[in-house]
Amino acid sequence: MTRFEQPRVAVIGAGAVGSAWATLTVAAGWSVALYDPDSSRLAEGFDALPGRVRGLVDLGRAHPELAHRGLESLRLGRSLLQAVTDADWIIEAAGDELAPKQRLLEQVEQVSRRAATLTSSSSRHHASILAARLRRPERLLALHPLIPVELLPTVEVVPGPATDPTCIEDVRFWLGLLGRTPVVLKKEFPGDAGGRIHAAVFRECIQLVLEDVLDVEDVDRALAHGLGLVFASGGIFRSLLLNGPGLEADPIVSRAVTGAEEGWSVLATWQQLSPEEQRRLVHAVEKAYGSATPEAQMERDRRLRELLIAIQAGEANPAS
Amino acid sequence: MTRFEQPRVAVIGAGAVGSAWATLTVAAGWSVALYDPDSSRLAEGFDALPGRVRGLVDLGRAHPELAHRGLESLRLGRSLLQAVTDADWIIEAAGDELAPKQRLLEQVEQVSRRAATLTSSSSRHHASILAARLRRPERLLALHPLIPVELLPTVEVVPGPATDPTCIEDVRFWLGLLGRTPVVLKKEFPGDAGGRIHAAVFRECIQLVLEDVLDVEDVDRALAHGLGLVFASGGIFRSLLLNGPGLEADPIVSRAVTGAEEGWSVLATWQQLSPEEQRRLVHAVEKAYGSATPEAQMERDRRLRELLIAIQAGEANPAS
Repeated sequence: MTRFEQPRVAVIGAGAVGSAWATLTVAAGWSVALYDPDSSRLAEGFDALPGRVRGLVDLGRAHPELAHRGLESLRLGRSLLQAVTDADWIIEAAGDELAPKQRLLEQVEQVSRRAATLTSSSSRHHASILAARLRRPERLLALHPLIPVELLPTVEVVPGPATDPTCIEDVRFWLGLLGRTPVVLKKEFPGDAGGRIHAAVFRECIQLVLEDVLDVEDVDRALAHGLGLVFASGGIFRSLLLNGPGLEADPIVSRAVTGAEEGWSVLATWQQLSPEEQRRLVHAVEKAYGSATPEAQMERDRRLRELLIAIQAGEANPAS
Repeated sequence: MTRFEQPRVAVIGAGAVGSAWATLTVAAGWSVALYDPDSSRLAEGFDALPGRVRGLVDLGRAHPELAHRGLESLRLGRSLLQAVTDADWIIEAAGDELAPKQRLLEQVEQVSRRAATLTSSSSRHHASILAARLRRPERLLALHPLIPVELLPTVEVVPGPATDPTCIEDVRFWLGLLGRTPVVLKKEFPGDAGGRIHAAVFRECIQLVLEDVLDVEDVDRALAHGLGLVFASGGIFRSLLLNGPGLEADPIVSRAVTGAEEGWSVLATWQQLSPEEQRRLVHAVEKAYGSATPEAQMERDRRLRELLIAIQAGEANPAS
């Protein structure tokens, strides 16, 4: 194949993230094989795929004809060999434990094409670690999608020092075909990008709840109707600049940094919750929401669909 | 007046934030007086108001008839006395320097009705500090809007320990009339809520740029197409729960906390940038965007308008 064709895809891992990657690639009309070493998880994940793909179509996030074509060519891998043997892009999304993951990737490499690109949807391990047992570490890179994978465009791409630039460009191109927003890290960095930002926000939000400054619902409401919209409308640096139109970056950024210094000095610094704090947090979230229902999840998906249309409408305008 | 009427408003301060509050309240059809001790800033702010109110109407964020009524009754305060004398709600949004602000609030109190509620749009000082020179500190609370004030719903309301609960309820009600999402802090807390979260995100994003992990545009794109949408669609705690529908809060929150511990251990801890780092950051932002144009700002406003429609559409659905 050349880069400018649809890749043949093998998804390894039929849990939440693997099934989501399978849904996304099948819905795009691509040829996909799904495999999981755990045959009952594989059967369950495979059987759920048509419903998940139709769900994306119903949300208006997939084209019915492409989805139909993808479902027609969808295959259940009877073995790892059968699943990956002709794949151009192997998406590994099995569990996050390191040693089994490294062994699985080694097995994948043994039965895959030399030219295949291998991505690992790991949120915890860098490509250089994941590739430790590989003979061709240059074919591997790490991918961090956000959940729900089918709906959220940003996918972090984290090559290792050994990764072949062609693999990076292929993955970037394929993610683009899937309507994703690939964000390629220039180097491995502890916690990666989105992970760090999420961890930082999570800590401050937990602090607000545990210190009884805000209830869980108020934290969520403040974010949803406030900073969430700021970030969604243009990120953080761009939003700062746009608050002072006509001004140069210098006074605006410098003022923001100086203004933030006081804020940085009071931020939380703890790196762990005590068991008692963790219990209080869980209790506060339970009190706020009970457990989440599939209906509430579908409603969130519809809200995300509307938000995606909103940002795309904004970006289609050449003046943006 | 009773709480269930439109308040007569005096906005003190005709800079960016004061003008925005005036725009918002005038566009709602309310009776508003604008005042600034600096007469040229007052004239400039006052003259710009009709255009700003029309801008909100053009964006579909204000009703033309109400906006017309508000502009008809808009008054320029010839003096502080004249501006605040009959006001129910006095919105102070002058500069952020403490001593002049305290003196201004003292002057405001001397000429305002005893029953007036005084809010200070300060992002730096708590109500208890702001009220230091007041004889009726119970009438004052702090408000933190986000910029652009006219468009972003979340407004943090931070009462001091002395604040009269009636004032809090009045302000909450008035903000609701204005289509805002009031978030009332249960107590004063260093950095408040949104300020802490913004500072935490800003620090991680600056770190990513200074360590050359991502360019400024990539940070913004990752946020805009990723965590910004997550937060906008349901905050942080609710989004976590919705990723495991049907599960109880306990395993989900506990797992998220355990998963985050590794993340917290690598987050930035610095509280200041060196002059050289600040220069590099400014340069990186300049290289990415140059300076922001009024056209880009209008485009951002249109994007925010679409995002607001999107979250409101999602929330109107009873299943949400």
